[in-house]
Amino acid sequence: MTIHENRQVRLTARPRGIPQGEHFSLVTEPIAAPGKGEILIANRYLSVDPAQRGWANEEGNYSAPVPLDTPMRALAVGEIIASNVPDYRPGEHVYGWFGWQRYCLTTPDAVLRRVVPSSLPLSANLSVLGMNGITAYLAFHGLGDPKPGEHVLVSTAAGSVGSFVGQLAKIAGCRAVGLTGSSNKAAHAKARYGYAEMINYREAPDLGAAIRAACPDGNDIFFDNTGGSIADVAIRTMRLRGRVIQCGTAANASWTPVPTGPRPEREILTRRLRWSGFIIFDHLAEFETAAARLAELTLAGRIVHDEEILPGLEHAPGAIARLYRGENQGKLIIAVD
Amino acid sequence: MTIHENRQVRLTARPRGIPQGEHFSLVTEPIAAPGKGEILIANRYLSVDPAQRGWANEEGNYSAPVPLDTPMRALAVGEIIASNVPDYRPGEHVYGWFGWQRYCLTTPDAVLRRVVPSSLPLSANLSVLGMNGITAYLAFHGLGDPKPGEHVLVSTAAGSVGSFVGQLAKIAGCRAVGLTGSSNKAAHAKARYGYAEMINYREAPDLGAAIRAACPDGNDIFFDNTGGSIADVAIRTMRLRGRVIQCGTAANASWTPVPTGPRPEREILTRRLRWSGFIIFDHLAEFETAAARLAELTLAGRIVHDEEILPGLEHAPGAIARLYRGENQGKLIIAVD
Repeated sequence: MTIHENRQVRLTARPRGIPQGEHFSLVTEPIAAPGKGEILIANRYLSVDPAQRGWANEEGNYSAPVPLDTPMRALAVGEIIASNVPDYRPGEHVYGWFGWQRYCLTTPDAVLRRVVPSSLPLSANLSVLGMNGITAYLAFHGLGDPKPGEHVLVSTAAGSVGSFVGQLAKIAGCRAVGLTGSSNKAAHAKARYGYAEMINYREAPDLGAAIRAACPDGNDIFFDNTGGSIADVAIRTMRLRGRVIQCGTAANASWTPVPTGPRPEREILTRRLRWSGFIIFDHLAEFETAAARLAELTLAGRIVHDEEILPGLEHAPGAIARLYRGENQGKLIIAVD
Repeated sequence: MTIHENRQVRLTARPRGIPQGEHFSLVTEPIAAPGKGEILIANRYLSVDPAQRGWANEEGNYSAPVPLDTPMRALAVGEIIASNVPDYRPGEHVYGWFGWQRYCLTTPDAVLRRVVPSSLPLSANLSVLGMNGITAYLAFHGLGDPKPGEHVLVSTAAGSVGSFVGQLAKIAGCRAVGLTGSSNKAAHAKARYGYAEMINYREAPDLGAAIRAACPDGNDIFFDNTGGSIADVAIRTMRLRGRVIQCGTAANASWTPVPTGPRPEREILTRRLRWSGFIIFDHLAEFETAAARLAELTLAGRIVHDEEILPGLEHAPGAIARLYRGENQGKLIIAVD
């Protein structure tokens, strides 16, 4: 078979905090043909995710840090172009841990889900049918237990997960209010993502008052991607037996030393809250079902998704910092050239 | 019928923090015969509970504060001595909201549970078959979801609820470790309440190290009555998918202003915790079933309970402060003379 030139975006310096372009290097080298039990995947689209900050750092996260001088850990969607595994056939598309690189030589362990052919674009497998949509779906329904008429508050509501939570909340018959950090995003989220109200937390002189005004009846579900001062206010708006879904903690750039905040235990007790942590990797067995349901909702026009696709691997090194600056419009994706 | 002289312990001054003897007055006055729909109860035993601090204060608790110059809100067990309600017969014993007084003229709304006659002493209805035992049972099983072989940590383990949690954990096949504030109580709890290890948190130079040493495998369930610095350490010992049961927040004497502590949201996320608040008053419908099961376990000798009974209403005013000083040996009860 053809010898392919692989291009990789490797992590070559250990960041403290948000990874910047300087922590990565572009490396070109030939890639071998698949050995026994291996498949060769040509990546088409690479994912850029907030969680990559944690994977690049050495902060005792829930995933081991990416070793230096290896391709940055990333989700991707690609096409199998050579295979030594009978069940994985060239021409088939797959979604999984294929890294920031043009080609990925790997074993089927790295595959999270086969791509079900549909009229949706391939990149949708990284957004609405990928970790973001599936996280929103499984966390909101699995831990939120939404009921029609309930009130839902979402932090990073215009983000890659929050944009689906608002829509899923609306589909479930709930009223959703979202938080975001810019007026443009607030307007966009209100127009497209099912939110009854959006709050720009950067422009609210009193965040607590802004949240209470937008949620006059309190909240039954708080879907939280930030933690920090937004969460401090939000849990104090919860109704009795409210559910808090901790899906991320983006508000704090560092957890060493542990930052302090107002103690929540009295709120948990008196409001009878249920505060749960959600990490998508616990739910691999539910991926197929969730993706099928999300595809159905998307094809029916009941869920929309926005993507910002950067053309070419050379955009990957700066992409995580771009995400944390909040500059992207929709799910940030790298197209492999 | 006879006119009875009632003796009441009234709340006559609003405390800030822990109620002391000076906040109460003993008042004697005749009590009327039951009117339409009313029953007259002769209290036999009165309960002393940590929650009474909250009921006496004006701190925006989950219960309205006790109005000044009325009998202190309290659970009690007593005998119906006159009744204008067909279904409630004189001679029957009942458990409920009868207050710190010798007689209680009330309606059946105040009754939480009828006392099922058994060979257990009547005072057991305020401890193992009362709010304490029922709280331990329903919170531990309902929110803790214990499985054999799991590890359980309990704060205020020698207290009126914790003493049952250790025993229920052992019956469920779990290993339980408890925290308490004196060496005597630690020894007593280890000998009687099912704990594999007890920690005296007042004598531990490094509480985190002491908890980690006693719980080398981490904890699946943290049954918390304190919050505060014990909880800060405890949630950092939780195993993946651990359950934290917030049943009280005794570590902080005041919540205005809200005290600060290390932020928990990253722990909730990375350990996939489920942190729930438990308030027994949400579970009135489950009382009969829980009390029946606890009576069965007690009669079979599988659960023990300790009571400290103070003789006479005049001991009530100082009893809450006594409880918070940790001087009682077992559930603190006032016998009505």
